[in-house]
Amino acid sequence: MSQQFRAGPVDTSDSPFAHWRTMPLGSVSLGEGFWKQRQELNCRVSLRHGYRMLEAAGNFHNFRLAAGLAEGSYRGRNFLDSDVYKWLEAAAWELANGSDAELYHMASDAIGLVEAAQCADGYLNTYYQTAEQGRRWTDMDHGHELYCAGHLFQAAVALQRAIGDDRLMQVARRFADHIYSVFGPTGREETCGHPEIEMALVELYRSTDERRYLELTELFIERRGRKKMVGLGAYGPEYHQDHVPVREAQEATGHAVRQLYLTTGVTDLYLETGEDALIQAMERLWSDIVGRKLFVTGGVGSRLDGEAFGDPYELPSDQCYCETCAAIANAMWNWRMLLASGDGRFADLIEHTLYNSILCSPSLDGWHYFYMNPLMVRSAEYMRISTNPPPGETSSEPGRPKWHDVACCPPNVMRILASLAHYVATYEDHGLQIHQYLPSDISWERAKGQKVNLRLSTNMPWDGQTTIEIRESDRNPWSLRLRLPSWTHAATVALNGHVIEAPVIERGYIVLERTWEAGDRIQMDLQVAPMLIEANPRVDATRSSVAVQHGPIVYCLEDQDQKGASNLLDIQIDTRTPLQAEWQPDLLGGVMVIEAQGYLLDSAAWEGHLYKPLGQNARAIRQSIRLVAIPTKPVAVSCQPDSHAPPDW
Amino acid sequence: MSQQFRAGPVDTSDSPFAHWRTMPLGSVSLGEGFWKQRQELNCRVSLRHGYRMLEAAGNFHNFRLAAGLAEGSYRGRNFLDSDVYKWLEAAAWELANGSDAELYHMASDAIGLVEAAQCADGYLNTYYQTAEQGRRWTDMDHGHELYCAGHLFQAAVALQRAIGDDRLMQVARRFADHIYSVFGPTGREETCGHPEIEMALVELYRSTDERRYLELTELFIERRGRKKMVGLGAYGPEYHQDHVPVREAQEATGHAVRQLYLTTGVTDLYLETGEDALIQAMERLWSDIVGRKLFVTGGVGSRLDGEAFGDPYELPSDQCYCETCAAIANAMWNWRMLLASGDGRFADLIEHTLYNSILCSPSLDGWHYFYMNPLMVRSAEYMRISTNPPPGETSSEPGRPKWHDVACCPPNVMRILASLAHYVATYEDHGLQIHQYLPSDISWERAKGQKVNLRLSTNMPWDGQTTIEIRESDRNPWSLRLRLPSWTHAATVALNGHVIEAPVIERGYIVLERTWEAGDRIQMDLQVAPMLIEANPRVDATRSSVAVQHGPIVYCLEDQDQKGASNLLDIQIDTRTPLQAEWQPDLLGGVMVIEAQGYLLDSAAWEGHLYKPLGQNARAIRQSIRLVAIPTKPVAVSCQPDSHAPPDW
Repeated sequence: MSQQFRAGPVDTSDSPFAHWRTMPLGSVSLGEGFWKQRQELNCRVSLRHGYRMLEAAGNFHNFRLAAGLAEGSYRGRNFLDSDVYKWLEAAAWELANGSDAELYHMASDAIGLVEAAQCADGYLNTYYQTAEQGRRWTDMDHGHELYCAGHLFQAAVALQRAIGDDRLMQVARRFADHIYSVFGPTGREETCGHPEIEMALVELYRSTDERRYLELTELFIERRGRKKMVGLGAYGPEYHQDHVPVREAQEATGHAVRQLYLTTGVTDLYLETGEDALIQAMERLWSDIVGRKLFVTGGVGSRLDGEAFGDPYELPSDQCYCETCAAIANAMWNWRMLLASGDGRFADLIEHTLYNSILCSPSLDGWHYFYMNPLMVRSAEYMRISTNPPPGETSSEPGRPKWHDVACCPPNVMRILASLAHYVATYEDHGLQIHQYLPSDISWERAKGQKVNLRLSTNMPWDGQTTIEIRESDRNPWSLRLRLPSWTHAATVALNGHVIEAPVIERGYIVLERTWEAGDRIQMDLQVAPMLIEANPRVDATRSSVAVQHGPIVYCLEDQDQKGASNLLDIQIDTRTPLQAEWQPDLLGGVMVIEAQGYLLDSAAWEGHLYKPLGQNARAIRQSIRLVAIPTKPVAVSCQPDSHAPPDW
Repeated sequence: MSQQFRAGPVDTSDSPFAHWRTMPLGSVSLGEGFWKQRQELNCRVSLRHGYRMLEAAGNFHNFRLAAGLAEGSYRGRNFLDSDVYKWLEAAAWELANGSDAELYHMASDAIGLVEAAQCADGYLNTYYQTAEQGRRWTDMDHGHELYCAGHLFQAAVALQRAIGDDRLMQVARRFADHIYSVFGPTGREETCGHPEIEMALVELYRSTDERRYLELTELFIERRGRKKMVGLGAYGPEYHQDHVPVREAQEATGHAVRQLYLTTGVTDLYLETGEDALIQAMERLWSDIVGRKLFVTGGVGSRLDGEAFGDPYELPSDQCYCETCAAIANAMWNWRMLLASGDGRFADLIEHTLYNSILCSPSLDGWHYFYMNPLMVRSAEYMRISTNPPPGETSSEPGRPKWHDVACCPPNVMRILASLAHYVATYEDHGLQIHQYLPSDISWERAKGQKVNLRLSTNMPWDGQTTIEIRESDRNPWSLRLRLPSWTHAATVALNGHVIEAPVIERGYIVLERTWEAGDRIQMDLQVAPMLIEANPRVDATRSSVAVQHGPIVYCLEDQDQKGASNLLDIQIDTRTPLQAEWQPDLLGGVMVIEAQGYLLDSAAWEGHLYKPLGQNARAIRQSIRLVAIPTKPVAVSCQPDSHAPPDW
C-alpha cells in the first residue's frame, strides 16, 4: 500500500505504543443509513456552503492579500486561516469517499492560494503577513500562529493520504522546518496559547518519518505549564493550561477546546514515546471530566465566561457553553485514548458525543450551525443573544446561524463527518475490533494475501439489531471484538443462529474468536428501551430532574410539542409510567419519538411571586398531558423549517 | 432651614409628585445598634482605607496629572474619577454624622484636586484630559464621561447639603452648564452608555432650582432606546438599555447596574414631572424583576457574561453575578419608588437588599469587599478566579479583596452606609412614616414651631420588638405609619400598654392616628421565627431546595460549620423538624445562628459517576447531622480572620 493511502486522520499503524492500529483509508466504507445520509449532505451541501462562506467572510481574500493577488486589508480575527485548512481537510476526506470533480477544483484552487501566500522562508500566516507585518511570534498567547500551522499540517496530511496530492504537504514541511528553526531545541522556549499543533506535528511525523516534528511536539508540550501566559478576562494561566506542567495536571481547566486539543496531542505523543507520566496524566484528566465535568449529552465547557471548564459538578443546563469544537476535540482525544488502551469506555464516549454533542450543531439542511449547545434554552431571545453571529452581523435570528464571526465549528463538523469511517474499526495482529455501529463493509488484510472482509448491517441508533456477515476470511483463527455499548441493559449474541451463552467480555467488548468462514453470521441484539437518567446529586443544577435517553441518544423536550403547556417549567414527568418509543418516518427525516406521561401543574399560586415560605405552595395538577421528546436538538423555539439547500445555491 | 442642610442624598421636599417627602438631614440620628456599629466602622476604617486605595490605584494621581501637578501617564480604566466622587460623597455624609477633622482634611484635599483639574470651559474628566486628549465625547457607549459627571454632581450636592461646602458645587455647575451647551436641546442628540447622570442632574436641579438640569435628564432619557449603541460582547443594544425607549420598556435587561441607575433616574424625573408613562414603565420593570429576576437575597444580575439580567427565572446560585453596585442601585431605585407611591413593598425590598445583598460585600473588618456576590461557592479556587482582583494583581486570595481593578463597589458601599439615616423615615403634611427599624431619634417640624420628636428602640434584625416613644408633639392629630415587614407572620401593636385590636393597615403600613402626647409609647411585636423559603418552581436552578431565613436575614451554610460533612452537596435538610435560633455573642460580632436537623447522605454509590438510570441509586443516610447556618456571607471557604484595621494603617 502506498504511503499516501495508508490512513485516515490518525495513523497508528507504526506507532510503537498503540494497543490497536487504525485501519487503512478506504478499508471501511459506509453503507446506506443514518450517518451515510449525513455524510452525503456534508459533501453535497455543507462543503459547498463552507467554500462560499470562506469567500464571503474574507478567508480566501486574506490569502490573496498575502500572495499579492488582491488589494485591501486583512479581514476578520487573527485565526481565519485555520478555517480554510479545516475545510480543505474535510474536502480531502470527502474526496476519498468518492470522486467529485467540482469539489476537487474548489480544493485545488484553495491549495493554490495557500501555496501562493507562503513566504520564501516557509512562514505562513496571512494575518501576520498583512495586518501585523514584522510582528511574527510577538503574541504567543493569543496570536494563534502555531495553531493555524497545526491545521495546515492536518490538511496537508489529509490531502496526501486521501487523494495523493502533496502540494500542501510541501507547503507544510517548509513551514514545519521553519518552525523548527525558530522553536526547536536551540530556539525560543515558547509555545502557542492555543494547542493544536502538537497533534498535527505528530501526524506530520507519522506521514513523513521526520523525527524533528515529533521532537517539536515534545518541546511544545514541555514548555506549557510555566505560568507565563496571562490568560483571558478573569482567568489566569489556567485559561491556556499554562498553570501546571502537563505531566502534573490533576484537573481539566480553562478554555475547553484548548484543554482538549492539548490532551489529544499529548496522547498522540504517548502513542509514539510510551511515556507513562503522560498517559497517567491523561487518565487523571479523563476521570475528572467524565466523573465531574461532563454534561449528560457528552458536551463539555460549563461556562460562557472563558468558554471554559467549571468547578467539579458545575453543570448548568442553561448557561453552559458546550462548544461544538470542544465536543469534537473530546471525540478526537478519546479516539487516541482508545488506540492507546484498548478500553471500550473511550469508544462509548465517542459514540455518545457524536450523537448528542456534535450532530446537534449542523441543521438538517446542512448549512446552519450551532456554536454553543446549551442543554436548556428558555426563549428565542436567549438564542439570539448568545449565538456567535455571522460576520458583519451583531446578532442573528433565533436558531442556527449560517456562519459565525468565529467560524471554527462549521468546518470542524465538516471534517469529522467526512472522516467518520475512520472511527468504525481498528485491528491488531490477531483480530479486528468494531467500535461504532454504522452500516459498513470492512476489509482487513491481516498479512500479505490474507484477506478478511465483512459486512455490518444495522439500524442503529433506532434499534439494537446488528448483523455481521463474514464475506471472506483466511483459514487462521482471529478474534472479532464488538463493543458492548454502556447504554444497553442486556445483549445477546448469536453465531449462525445459535445464541452464545455467557460470551467473553473484555474491557467493554464481546470477544469472538475462531476460524472464521465466509458466510458466518453474527447477530447481536442490544436491548434498546427508552429510559430515564438521573445525575449525581452533587450536580445541583439538575437536582430532581431526569433526562430521557433511547439507545445512544439523549432526548429533548421542546415546548411546542407539549400540547396544553405554555411553559416547560410547569411540567412534571410521571416517572412510574413506562416511556414509549414510536417511529415517526416523516418527522425530522425519520426519528424515534419518545412519549411519557406527565402533568401540567397549576402555576396560578405562584403568579408574580418568586419566593414563599415552604409548605404553603402545593401545586395542583391541572391536567395530565402526554410529553413528547425528540432526539437532541437544543432549540426550544420554532426554527425556520429546514430546507434542502441554501436559497441561492 | 438653610438650603444646604435641608436633605440627604435625595430631596423630595419640593417635588410635586412625591407621595412622601424626605426628611431634612440631621432629623434622624442613629442610636447604638447593628447599623450604627457598621456606620462607625465605615467612617473609622473604610473611608480611611478607601482614601489610601485611591492614592495607591492612581485615582488621585490622575487628577494631579490633569491639573499639571504630576507627571507620568493616566492610570487605570477610563472611569476612575467616579471612585473619587463616590468616596467624597461618602465622606460628606459621614461628616454630617459627626465632626471628624482628619476626614475633613482628606476630603478637602480631594476637593482641591478636583477643582484644580477642571478645564477652563468646565469640562472635567481626567482620562480624556490626559490619555485621550482631543477625543472628548467620541465614545459615548463606553467612555463613561457623563457617568463620571453624574457622580461628581452627587458628591457636590452631598458636600453642600452635609457640610455647607460649595467648592465642588461650583465645579459641578460649571461642568453641568458645559454639558448643557454640548448636549442641550440644540446640541448633540446622544446620551451616555452608562446611566447615572440622570438621577444626579435631578438632584442638582433640586439643590439649585436650575431647570436646565432637569431638562437635560429628560433629554438623556428620551435619547435612550434608539438602538444606536453597539453593546458589549455577545450583547446588542439591550446591554445599554438602548434597544427600546424607556417608556416602552417591558423587561429589565442588559447590564444590571446600568439598568437600575437608569430606572432610578427615570423615577426621579417622574417625581418632578408626574408623567404617567414613566411610572407605568417603572412598575412593569419592577414587577419583572421582583416576579422573575430577583435572587432570594435580593441580589440581581443573573449572568457573569455582561454582568447582566438573564431570562425570566434564570437565577443560578453559583454562576450569578449579583454585583454589590447592582444591589445598591436597586435600593436607590426602590427608595424613589417608595417616595413616589407610598407603597411599603418598596421599603420591604430596600430592607431585604441592605441586609442580604449589600452588607455581604464589606468584611467585618471594614476594609475588604466583594464585588460579585454569588449565592453558592463551591471552592476557594472559584472565588480566586472570579473575583475582580486589586489593581496590578492578576488574581487574589480567596475571600474579599482589599480593593478592585474596577473599584466601583467599595465607595458605593461607603456612601450608602454613611447615609443610612436618610432611609429611615419620611413625612407628609399629616404624618410621619417609619420604613426601616434602626434605633434612632427622629425629629419632625410639622410647621413653624410645631415640633415632633420620637425615639425608636429596637434590637432588629435579631428580634421583632420595637418601641417608639413620643418625646414631644404639638396638640394636633397626626398619623404615624409603621411598615409591617413582609417577613413577619404575625404582629401586635400596643399603645401605652393596650394592644390595638385589628389596627388599620394600608399598603404595608400599620396606621396609628391620634393626638399624640409626650410619653406615649408604642410597642410593636413582630413575630420572628426561623423559616424555610422555597422558590417558584420555574426557578429550575434551585429546584427542590430551601433557603433559611430569620427576620429579614437570609442565612448561609458554610461547609466548615457542618461537622462530619466534607461536601455540602451531600447534605439534606429535614424540613419537618423545626429550626432553632440561638444567639451567639462571640461569633462574627454577635449573630443569631440557626440550627436545623439534617442528614449526611452516602456518596459512595456515585463515586466517579455522573449519570445513571433512574431508580438504581437510592442513597442511604450515613448519619444525622446538625446543620448550622450563619447570616448571609457568601463564602464557603475559610477566610483570613477579620482583624480590626488594615495592617499598616
